[in-house]
Amino acid sequence: MKSRAAVAFEAGKPLEIVEIDVAPPRQGEVLIRITNTGVCHTDAFTLSGNDPEGLFPVVLGHEGAGVVVEVGEGVTSVVPGDHVIPLYTAECGKCEFCLSGKTNLCIAVRATQGRGVMPDGTTRFSYNGQPLYHYMGCSTFSEYTVVAEVSLAKINPEANPEHVCLLGCGVTTGIGAVHNTAKVQPGDSVAIFGLGGIGLAAVQGARQAKAGRIIAIDTNPEKFALARQFGATDCLNPKDFDKPIQEVLIEMSGWGIDHTFECIGNVHVMRSALEAAHRGWGQSIVIGVAGAGQEISTRPFQLVTGRVWKGSAFGGVKGRSQLPIMVEEAMKGDIELAPFVTHTMHLNQINKAFDLMHEGKSIRSVIHFH
Amino acid sequence: MKSRAAVAFEAGKPLEIVEIDVAPPRQGEVLIRITNTGVCHTDAFTLSGNDPEGLFPVVLGHEGAGVVVEVGEGVTSVVPGDHVIPLYTAECGKCEFCLSGKTNLCIAVRATQGRGVMPDGTTRFSYNGQPLYHYMGCSTFSEYTVVAEVSLAKINPEANPEHVCLLGCGVTTGIGAVHNTAKVQPGDSVAIFGLGGIGLAAVQGARQAKAGRIIAIDTNPEKFALARQFGATDCLNPKDFDKPIQEVLIEMSGWGIDHTFECIGNVHVMRSALEAAHRGWGQSIVIGVAGAGQEISTRPFQLVTGRVWKGSAFGGVKGRSQLPIMVEEAMKGDIELAPFVTHTMHLNQINKAFDLMHEGKSIRSVIHFH
Repeated sequence: MKSRAAVAFEAGKPLEIVEIDVAPPRQGEVLIRITNTGVCHTDAFTLSGNDPEGLFPVVLGHEGAGVVVEVGEGVTSVVPGDHVIPLYTAECGKCEFCLSGKTNLCIAVRATQGRGVMPDGTTRFSYNGQPLYHYMGCSTFSEYTVVAEVSLAKINPEANPEHVCLLGCGVTTGIGAVHNTAKVQPGDSVAIFGLGGIGLAAVQGARQAKAGRIIAIDTNPEKFALARQFGATDCLNPKDFDKPIQEVLIEMSGWGIDHTFECIGNVHVMRSALEAAHRGWGQSIVIGVAGAGQEISTRPFQLVTGRVWKGSAFGGVKGRSQLPIMVEEAMKGDIELAPFVTHTMHLNQINKAFDLMHEGKSIRSVIHFH
Repeated sequence: MKSRAAVAFEAGKPLEIVEIDVAPPRQGEVLIRITNTGVCHTDAFTLSGNDPEGLFPVVLGHEGAGVVVEVGEGVTSVVPGDHVIPLYTAECGKCEFCLSGKTNLCIAVRATQGRGVMPDGTTRFSYNGQPLYHYMGCSTFSEYTVVAEVSLAKINPEANPEHVCLLGCGVTTGIGAVHNTAKVQPGDSVAIFGLGGIGLAAVQGARQAKAGRIIAIDTNPEKFALARQFGATDCLNPKDFDKPIQEVLIEMSGWGIDHTFECIGNVHVMRSALEAAHRGWGQSIVIGVAGAGQEISTRPFQLVTGRVWKGSAFGGVKGRSQLPIMVEEAMKGDIELAPFVTHTMHLNQINKAFDLMHEGKSIRSVIHFH
């Protein structure tokens, strides 16, 4: 079938809005009509050409919401008309990782997803007969897309797709890291480095977890109002201090912060976040995605004296089991999504969404197709 | 009183066996007659002058066993005649850290211990009227030493001090890291990098924890016989492979090792150990002490895909609560100590113990005073 899509034909160039061909879903696959999609920094990272695993031409986008149109052979968990969120972290429920109870990093479709194709090794997208790659198993920058059944969360059809599409990536990543990766307990202290979508979501997660002190950190003080609205008790701008921010945090707290979160992707900030963690038990969670080849470092003494360095992908959330619950929380207002949506626009304007993000003028632009 | 002691008058020089003066214990302090002491790499590190916190002249030694001779005012937990192990990690039971239930890193005497003095800021040691520094709150290279009450584990008087002195540092560090820091569960896979005293103890700890596969790694294959005796199921020499050892371990195991332990103090091995950990949940525990200023590094992707980087000091063991139990385990044979003692010698020969260690010819030399 024909589908309007924003295609990245080559790295570093604007997306082109064209009509592509989408093939029917094969065994274990589902055809979805995307109603809304957010534009995330990861899309921009791949588009820039700096992502060493980036493939072109490709249909980007991984933060979407939509409705099932058609299911392939053997699909049992969704039927046409179901409202869904595509998952870049699948949940098959059967692999060693799903069965471990210790991680959300399902491997069911991992290898082919990384190669930009469906589990059978082929693509469902083409433009003038030229194959287009899939992206992160989602490709939400196309009105119609095909994803694996294991990569779909079925959600409450009453949910507002313009908001809950954000649960497909950034908001879930931030909130989930607080609950699943750090397991913040009531009264714990929390410091969040970087107040983009993920960091602001982590602030909300900390509030949900009833953290005691929630310290929000950004070099742009314009972010502080929303951070406070979401529950931050302290807002710090590292530029206001003539010493490293980890020293400021340790002085503020005595021995450091129970849980710190790096939500930027800056390896130097990752070090600061680790070293700001509480002696004896503090942990630091890397959430941001660093540039290719970049490395984190610290003195091992930081670990030997009790700090723990961890990371989180998709907030440790198992998409099919847990995302529907988070959608319900959003519908009840326990997760606030509306403030993240700073801009809405038609697919035709999607390059403007990337410009706004690069200029730091948006938290999220949400795209619609009609 | 007079005491025979091995004094480090300056960095990089052999110890001198002299008669020093030991002042009586003050409030909260205990005078101990040391019967035996191990010689540990940390003593050699400080003696070398490479330890930036090293102070001279000093009475080194921190892996000892002895008997209480006299107690200072207010001391209630030990009386003369009690058998004890001095603790470089105190346990006051009252500080924020002791009360947390999350760490063994008591701060009761931390600041003064680091400055080589007793909690009141003064030293009990002198030689010809010149003050000598204390070391790690223990100074077991003197027949008589003074330690804080909170730095003493009271143990079963039937225990063999020539063996259980090793629970004052290396053996406890290795075994404790397995139980307290990594919390190895039955069936888990374990890889131990470096088969000195700490690494061999970690192998024993893994056996106690009923780990499934216990992979022992060293560039010296002469260590493998003892590792196998202690429970290693596989022994690997990185020199036998033409690829990095972490790749070997991942190929052996599929997705990596559940728990890895760095027991050397080599920052490059620390990286290998982290990267050998299982995708999704593997953790790597830094136990070895790296040289001054050295740093560990890795790509943050290693953490984001579920690996956890931790450290362990004194095996996470709370000395006064837990060390007496470990002494009992050693007496029952659940912890094998005798194989660690490759040499025993009189205090007069202590410099030979350092030589044997530097030449890689000893696991532990144990010193006696009579």
